[in-house]
Amino acid sequence: MPITSQQQTDEHFMRMALQEANQALAEGEIPIGAVVVARGRIIARAHNLTETLHDVTAHAEMQAITAAANLLGGKYLTDCTLYVTVEPCVMCAGAIGWAQIKRVVYGAPDEKRGYARLAPHAFHPKCNVLTGVLEAECRDIMQQFFRTKR
Amino acid sequence: MPITSQQQTDEHFMRMALQEANQALAEGEIPIGAVVVARGRIIARAHNLTETLHDVTAHAEMQAITAAANLLGGKYLTDCTLYVTVEPCVMCAGAIGWAQIKRVVYGAPDEKRGYARLAPHAFHPKCNVLTGVLEAECRDIMQQFFRTKR
Repeated sequence: MPITSQQQTDEHFMRMALQEANQALAEGEIPIGAVVVARGRIIARAHNLTETLHDVTAHAEMQAITAAANLLGGKYLTDCTLYVTVEPCVMCAGAIGWAQIKRVVYGAPDEKRGYARLAPHAFHPKCNVLTGVLEAECRDIMQQFFRTKR
Repeated sequence: MPITSQQQTDEHFMRMALQEANQALAEGEIPIGAVVVARGRIIARAHNLTETLHDVTAHAEMQAITAAANLLGGKYLTDCTLYVTVEPCVMCAGAIGWAQIKRVVYGAPDEKRGYARLAPHAFHPKCNVLTGVLEAECRDIMQQFFRTKR
């Protein structure tokens, strides 16, 4: 399969999300990172901060959505793409739905906590989803974290 | 059916959540309020602020969970009851699950956006749920809001 421009673009932004995940890892957090892209530009980036903030709602996606909406001055992110290293959970999927995000790209699946199994209709009906972008890298950093916890 | 002490307690705290919903109504927000109770005491109260903050994540429950965890200094709310005037959405249900909240009491169902239909397994498996507390009041304030929008 030839490498398409869209594929290069998606991998580029997923690498930015992976940078955030690495930052989370360095801070002792479950290493998940996210970026929000509008018109080819990153308008928000965030990583999981649940331990640091003692706050279960401080997932990478939640913070990125709040930051992106804040930057745009409106609560809907209809022209945005969210890149996130791991499949969103139910909470984040609900937020993605409310924000009417047009496109979601994620790296590694989360079979236990992912939205696809627990809340498959959470996104806006018109939302386009792409999975598996840099999946190995996104999974490896998670495994690296959980190895240190055993 | 005789009025039990637990029923009186639940109605008392739901009235506190309704006070928050009324505050939201006064601010032009969809009127949903929530309180978190631990050992018979309110430790957090909040109302929907999505319009004011331009933030889809600013639901009453999300803010109440963040505030309660902040007060307790830990992210789990295992000994808490969340009272909320309307059935939680998928996002809030996900947060309730992550926070391991032990008991959820809500007033009016939300058949369109509620978690029970869209993410029925979002809560912690041991979470106890009670619905219909002051249901008419909780529904009335919502209808009052939506009448003004037509």
